[in-house]
Amino acid sequence: MSAQRYKWVGTRQNRPDGADKVTGRARFAADFNLPGELVGKVLRSPHAHANIRSIDTTAAARLPGVKAIVTGADFPEQPDQLLPAGEMQVNLRDVTRNIMAKEKALYEGHAVAAVAATTAAVAAEALSLIKVDYEILPHVIDVREAMKDNAPVLHAHMRTEGVKPAPDKPSNIAKRLEFAKGDADAGFAQAEVVIEREFTTEPVHQGYIEPHAALASASEDGQVQLWTTTQGHFQVRGFCCRLLDLETAQLRVTPSEIGGGFGGKTVVYLEPLAIRLSQRAGRPVKMVMSREEVMRASGPTSGGHVKVKLGARKDGSIVAADVTVALQAGAFAGSPVGPSCMCSLACYDIDNIRVVGFDVVSNRPKVAAYRAPGAPISAWAVESVVDMLAQELGIDPIDLRLKNAAKQGTKTHYGASFGVIGLVETLEAAKNSPHYRAPVKPGHARGVAAGFWFNVGADSSAAAQVGEDGTVTIISGNPDIGGSRASLALMAAEELGIDYNKVRPIVADTASIGFNFVTGGSRVTFATGLAVINATRDAISQLKARAAKIWEVDVEGVVWEEGEARPSSTNVGKFEPLSLAKLAASASRTGGPINGHAQLNAQGAGPGFGVHIVDLKVDMDTGIVTIDRYTAVQDVGTAIHPSYVEGQLQGGAVQGIGWALNEEYIYDKQGRLQNPGFLDYRMPVASDLPMIETVLVEVPNPTHPYGVRGVGEVPIIPPMAAIGSAIARATGVRMLDLPMSPPRLSAAIDAATPAMAAE
Amino acid sequence: MSAQRYKWVGTRQNRPDGADKVTGRARFAADFNLPGELVGKVLRSPHAHANIRSIDTTAAARLPGVKAIVTGADFPEQPDQLLPAGEMQVNLRDVTRNIMAKEKALYEGHAVAAVAATTAAVAAEALSLIKVDYEILPHVIDVREAMKDNAPVLHAHMRTEGVKPAPDKPSNIAKRLEFAKGDADAGFAQAEVVIEREFTTEPVHQGYIEPHAALASASEDGQVQLWTTTQGHFQVRGFCCRLLDLETAQLRVTPSEIGGGFGGKTVVYLEPLAIRLSQRAGRPVKMVMSREEVMRASGPTSGGHVKVKLGARKDGSIVAADVTVALQAGAFAGSPVGPSCMCSLACYDIDNIRVVGFDVVSNRPKVAAYRAPGAPISAWAVESVVDMLAQELGIDPIDLRLKNAAKQGTKTHYGASFGVIGLVETLEAAKNSPHYRAPVKPGHARGVAAGFWFNVGADSSAAAQVGEDGTVTIISGNPDIGGSRASLALMAAEELGIDYNKVRPIVADTASIGFNFVTGGSRVTFATGLAVINATRDAISQLKARAAKIWEVDVEGVVWEEGEARPSSTNVGKFEPLSLAKLAASASRTGGPINGHAQLNAQGAGPGFGVHIVDLKVDMDTGIVTIDRYTAVQDVGTAIHPSYVEGQLQGGAVQGIGWALNEEYIYDKQGRLQNPGFLDYRMPVASDLPMIETVLVEVPNPTHPYGVRGVGEVPIIPPMAAIGSAIARATGVRMLDLPMSPPRLSAAIDAATPAMAAE
Repeated sequence: MSAQRYKWVGTRQNRPDGADKVTGRARFAADFNLPGELVGKVLRSPHAHANIRSIDTTAAARLPGVKAIVTGADFPEQPDQLLPAGEMQVNLRDVTRNIMAKEKALYEGHAVAAVAATTAAVAAEALSLIKVDYEILPHVIDVREAMKDNAPVLHAHMRTEGVKPAPDKPSNIAKRLEFAKGDADAGFAQAEVVIEREFTTEPVHQGYIEPHAALASASEDGQVQLWTTTQGHFQVRGFCCRLLDLETAQLRVTPSEIGGGFGGKTVVYLEPLAIRLSQRAGRPVKMVMSREEVMRASGPTSGGHVKVKLGARKDGSIVAADVTVALQAGAFAGSPVGPSCMCSLACYDIDNIRVVGFDVVSNRPKVAAYRAPGAPISAWAVESVVDMLAQELGIDPIDLRLKNAAKQGTKTHYGASFGVIGLVETLEAAKNSPHYRAPVKPGHARGVAAGFWFNVGADSSAAAQVGEDGTVTIISGNPDIGGSRASLALMAAEELGIDYNKVRPIVADTASIGFNFVTGGSRVTFATGLAVINATRDAISQLKARAAKIWEVDVEGVVWEEGEARPSSTNVGKFEPLSLAKLAASASRTGGPINGHAQLNAQGAGPGFGVHIVDLKVDMDTGIVTIDRYTAVQDVGTAIHPSYVEGQLQGGAVQGIGWALNEEYIYDKQGRLQNPGFLDYRMPVASDLPMIETVLVEVPNPTHPYGVRGVGEVPIIPPMAAIGSAIARATGVRMLDLPMSPPRLSAAIDAATPAMAAE
Repeated sequence: MSAQRYKWVGTRQNRPDGADKVTGRARFAADFNLPGELVGKVLRSPHAHANIRSIDTTAAARLPGVKAIVTGADFPEQPDQLLPAGEMQVNLRDVTRNIMAKEKALYEGHAVAAVAATTAAVAAEALSLIKVDYEILPHVIDVREAMKDNAPVLHAHMRTEGVKPAPDKPSNIAKRLEFAKGDADAGFAQAEVVIEREFTTEPVHQGYIEPHAALASASEDGQVQLWTTTQGHFQVRGFCCRLLDLETAQLRVTPSEIGGGFGGKTVVYLEPLAIRLSQRAGRPVKMVMSREEVMRASGPTSGGHVKVKLGARKDGSIVAADVTVALQAGAFAGSPVGPSCMCSLACYDIDNIRVVGFDVVSNRPKVAAYRAPGAPISAWAVESVVDMLAQELGIDPIDLRLKNAAKQGTKTHYGASFGVIGLVETLEAAKNSPHYRAPVKPGHARGVAAGFWFNVGADSSAAAQVGEDGTVTIISGNPDIGGSRASLALMAAEELGIDYNKVRPIVADTASIGFNFVTGGSRVTFATGLAVINATRDAISQLKARAAKIWEVDVEGVVWEEGEARPSSTNVGKFEPLSLAKLAASASRTGGPINGHAQLNAQGAGPGFGVHIVDLKVDMDTGIVTIDRYTAVQDVGTAIHPSYVEGQLQGGAVQGIGWALNEEYIYDKQGRLQNPGFLDYRMPVASDLPMIETVLVEVPNPTHPYGVRGVGEVPIIPPMAAIGSAIARATGVRMLDLPMSPPRLSAAIDAATPAMAAE
């Protein structure tokens, strides 16, 4: 895309984790073992909603080979307020109840007890011997049903936040929030065209291949070691310390290689149970979820209900927007309704905006983050209506977006004003893309949609250790979910001026490196990247000081260029350059080891925008949608490792395609999940898809030395609306509910064409 | 001993590793496992000296389950010169031949091939199928025999270093070195009493409980992970990278908890083999030595031959000393003859000294470091002669030493001048000890001897990470062989002003922390302690800066006292103190994580001196020596954790007692070891020993903030001469050869009393 500004940044180097992943050597959480380890298993509620009158573990405890049993009573009560854990603000009362039910089971699959035993068979038999006396309660699954006054109430103590006067009755609406800019009503009064629709989405699971797994070893002196699959081992440490009354320094968490996370591995499920069981049993305890447990008991993202009203002038200027987002949180408060509201209209510079959000509990597993949490849900609705506006006004959908595009200086409805952003460049790149310039094939239709994610910064620590041969180890504390080891190593090589292959990036455990916030929010290459850059610069300043010592000059007499210390202009010719390898070899004699360090709270994350284009055809009889061509265009700031960036765009697009077309949770009348496996929960596979084309637009983020923006979240946002819009243009039917699966789509087509249906 | 100067330093806190060690949870090297791991085993030479004509692995390779076989040919040739590896200077030509023989087997037990197979049984069978064609050569075991002109020559290319003119013939004498001060011959001319004797010692093994073990996993992209039991994982990294052409950043070494090392785990044996086998097999390979392999093929310390001549005036002033030390190096050059010569006379301020050393190879396993390497051998001889002088002159042996004691300003024969040292204080403490003041029981005799170790500094890196709750993790890179985690945590707690139990010390792997030189030379509490102190001070300066930011004052307006930031004198009363925990909780908002770091080359290690007192009785019929009372007195600088320091003194004394009385290698005429196990190689057990009493003398080292001197090496130095002198006083027989085992001692007694022998 851009001219070669850098030697290493922007090149496609081998992945540091590549060989181990293709050979099967990479160690995922279930690959860790300790001498004497026990098998831990969880008893889960068969009921969607039930009081737990009592739990009798007597018979299970008597079974030979059972070494420990824990229930909700084994976890201390926690305050009902937001408190920091691993620098996340969480309601620990809810978290402790989600990992293990106390007075109530709130969803099918909710953990009610756990055992540790010598074998998996003994553990399974022990589960069958635990008697739980349930009082079954009416349940509610759907978000709109849950909001009704007469809905079964999950939490008797819960009052809706953000409503005045404060309600005196419990409700499943945990929170109402509102963002406003200008005057929405006045805006709609100016509008010449107004379109209003209501949309829904189903919860969808992150679908990581590796199930949750944890191995815990607790010592009698209070020290605990934990190996787990996570996007944030510092967050696991924070959560477990809070839930189990451990001190931070007592718990050492080592992250495994991660078999996918996508946001779903930013919370804890098994980890506190494994630790508590290990404490009780005095032996290491390993727990691994089955796929069924993952589906029943780990967080999907919210299902949502979104009402969108847009008003525009005939020239296409959008003058007013009113969006209401109700997101299902699962059994405990805390859906991503905040970012869903924030991202809903952030692509557009609209003067009059009102966005209202509701966080709603129902008898489903507590939601977890999923790639751009909440944003795809509101974008599905907003972008669909934008496309309807384009259709109504006869304007090209990219041109309509260009006319209204947010740009530098645009003040968003949530308060932020944009700095340097690349939405216009991205829309133009989409318009000029080979895909968009190609004609739509006969029988096919084309859809377009945009997406926005703000990206985040937060806390990171890093180090750069110079080895005795001049090779360098880069230490960070973020599990690598999307290529961050490669991007960090590339930036370090660029700074140091040495070969990328002389730089080895590793992810250290919580004891070995300073705090790092979770791998998520598309923050690592930006924020931890900044820490790595600063750490390498610290190492370089030490290297220069060593050269100055050897040459007996002031450090100002030394410059660092192309991986070596060179005499500065005033000293040119007086000394031979000293390579990093030479300085490393003499380190002991010139003052000791050379290690660079940095820690920071990264500010200035650059927002990202994407535009996706899809060509598809619809089988009008079966409702089967075939994606023919798909292009993801995105402002990626600077693509540090372009292949990985393209992979992010491709992966996000594919997840969005699954969300659009097939993925959903199917519950029976008892509130029990009917499709808890990859056979029945249908994610796209390679044969469902064309090659996803990508266009990387590079509008560097001016607050980062290499212009890094986050790239991972944006690409899951546009696909649903792009596909829905293409379907609308192909069939004349505007789908309002996800997924647009064959039965639903064919039913909608049939409903829209009664004559044909009657044939 | 001293008044309580500190809150934590000098107190007896629980060991950080205590619970895990007493419950068996601590993970030693053999406790690490990886999915798919193979078992590696080594084929060893049955001959003490033989040319290897050929090795035929065809049949072994055909055995089902055999995945890789390596021989010396699989390891690249190395230069025949001293080069740095892990900051140690080593002859890599020799090292690569010691881990795996090339053209010659040089001792019984010398590795000649290694296999990796799916099971131990298959690996063992494969070894039996490897055909090695040996040409047996004459061998030599004894150091004096090996020095003779007509001795079988181990290395045809070897010429004695340090001799002029350079020899043109090969020799088993690898090196001659000489130290001199004043004029020894002139000194002896002034002497009124001259005593000269020749002494010998047998090689003794470090006797660590945990055999060598390693688990290696090599990836196809060149990356390698290694788990091993070692005193220096950075040295293991350095050695293996050199031997296997790996880059430092490619090899990540994680040390296990260590089941004893005492110097013997500062080199590599299995590690390069396991890595090479893993590279060849494409699977992880685990290798564990049997006890027999440890005894036959891992380094004991040298056996030695020491000639000592001391000249004194009748008042006890020692005026001249001449010492010649010949140390057996095993099959490759590199005995500890240097430190043996240096330490030989360092307790005494003598004007005229000549010390000559010889490094001699013979057909035994290559020696490794063993606690104060070389010093006990020369001290055995010198201290015995000092005792003979005391007897001859009728002076109390402590008084004689006091008269001649080295003190501040004494210039040693090896060039160093002493700073603040505590030998006089230690001798006086010994003289005033309850033990020395108690009368000798009838039938018993008392011996006294002194010992010296210079202690070392070298490279260390450390970090202090502040957790979100204000607990602190202290990271270093030195395996903890004698309580360094506790001593580092105590100093960190003292600096930070927080509870010791809020400080958790860990040992990080080679990728996670900067370079640390080997745990040895009694350096860790001194040198890595300095790094930890500097790292905590770095953290404190960050904490003060955060408080200043919160208070909106200059950092000079903040002081750090008792674990909290307080307003400095000019600001008193304006702000409430901010505890470490409060500052930690707000870290993200005040700038990000708080991590202190330091790396240094530590200068100013403080020499240590010890004086041991033993009361014993000798059964004149059987030669059995019973130790009745034993006291170790030592200048320990500051005893950071007194229990651990006492443990060091006790452990060293016990190892010295074993060396004195029982331990030896017994070879048959073919040069094959006859006692390769703890049943026949007799180390002292609890029932052999009284409680070892200790007196800690604290003469702080002025170059360390807490006055730390090394303490671990000194206590193994005095026991042999103390016991020999007590035996001499008990029996009238001055033993010149170790061990003074029952058969040897009874024979000596018999020889000295021919009338009795004839009865």
